[in-house]
Amino acid sequence: MSSDYASILTPAACYVDFCLVPVGTGNVSVASEVAQVQKLLRASGLKHTMHSAGTTVEGSWDDVMRVVGQAHAIVHQGGVQRVQTSMRVGTRTDKTQTAEQKVKRVEEILARDE
Amino acid sequence: MSSDYASILTPAACYVDFCLVPVGTGNVSVASEVAQVQKLLRASGLKHTMHSAGTTVEGSWDDVMRVVGQAHAIVHQGGVQRVQTSMRVGTRTDKTQTAEQKVKRVEEILARDE
Amino acid sequence: MSSDYASILTPAACYVDFCLVPVGTGNVSVASEVAQVQKLLRASGLKHTMHSAGTTVEGSWDDVMRVVGQAHAIVHQGGVQRVQTSMRVGTRTDKTQTAEQKVKRVEEILARDE
Amino acid sequence: MSSDYASILTPAACYVDFCLVPVGTGNVSVASEVAQVQKLLRASGLKHTMHSAGTTVEGSWDDVMRVVGQAHAIVHQGGVQRVQTSMRVGTRTDKTQTAEQKVKRVEEILARDE
Repeated sequence: MSSDYASILTPAACYVDFCLVPVGTGNVSVASEVAQVQKLLRASGLKHTMHSAGTTVEGSWDDVMRVVGQAHAIVHQGGVQRVQTSMRVGTRTDKTQTAEQKVKRVEEILARDE
Repeated sequence: MSSDYASILTPAACYVDFCLVPVGTGNVSVASEVAQVQKLLRASGLKHTMHSAGTTVEGSWDDVMRVVGQAHAIVHQGGVQRVQTSMRVGTRTDKTQTAEQKVKRVEEILARDE
Repeated sequence: MSSDYASILTPAACYVDFCLVPVGTGNVSVASEVAQVQKLLRASGLKHTMHSAGTTVEGSWDDVMRVVGQAHAIVHQGGVQRVQTSMRVGTRTDKTQTAEQKVKRVEEILARDE
Repeated sequence: MSSDYASILTPAACYVDFCLVPVGTGNVSVASEVAQVQKLLRASGLKHTMHSAGTTVEGSWDDVMRVVGQAHAIVHQGGVQRVQTSMRVGTRTDKTQTAEQKVKRVEEILARDE
């Protein structure tokens, strides 16, 4: 990488919502792989919440991306040859806002309007 | 559309997890647009759950896609010129499984392993 | 759907970029399913471009979402029990801009800066 | 991270297709931010291709995720307070396949069937 760019740091905080899909397993259920990934997330110490369509993780960019990469690695280690993940990633510099605060903010607006 | 394909029906059931982002508003917060969309979803009668990184909706393909399209339309009506949505969509023919059942299945595996 | 919302029309124009993944097939390659979907898209008459990480389709919201739903249906008809798609969807009201124009606009900025 | 997991390496190769959206800029066009990111990608030395709905990057997990994080950082440095990215990420252990090879494989199937 050229010198102008090499010094740019990745964000200190982000959230990632990801949904990992094992491909080519012959098994329609993905629950066992999702459970493996949940154990990894617990071990990571990063704040995370599973929902029915993915898992949201909060932390520094590098920590969060590392754990998602490890999730791919763990599923491969279990014999899955191809892993596909869809992610949403958000960063902001105006304020720190946790996942809970985001939901609460919307609920407040809805309550006010009722 | 050619006759071979015109008769193909869209799936009778699906889930969609979506995250809508208004673009070019000059407002860093998206909570007001998200609240508008939540009201639409309530009015739709479709089963839905908001989480910090999106909203999951369940129903027939046509009903779910229609309501997400209406969500874009409502946000445009509020003056937002550009709307960008990221979606995960899943369909399956082997069984009917609700959002709650998916999460429960993973939690059972985790509990068993502890 | 309540009367306030039932009359809201879905957008007249959108683009969708989607990546469809067959789940539980026992086959690591997804090329055959992708090819099936490309044939469907050709038959649809909608403008579309395949790239290495998905396919971009342009048209009205209803037409585009219908063809993606048909893509799920076709892959299910081929014996795949579960299909997972990741989509990006964009709509705008300020102007009509094709996929080619979007890329060209960025290339102009890059050329100007060199 | 607990010792069992700390040693797990992220994948040596992956592709990421990402679409970055600046939020709260008051500017409907995102072309200027996309151009900034393209310059960063050129400087990174990683193989990448821009299309109308995103950019595909190939490389090791850590290199690719680092450059996407730097893309967020660069857009923030330009004064954008919130950045939202949608990503598709794929890894496989059965073979090495470039972005070009993936498209070619599908085109071969389509040509054979015509």
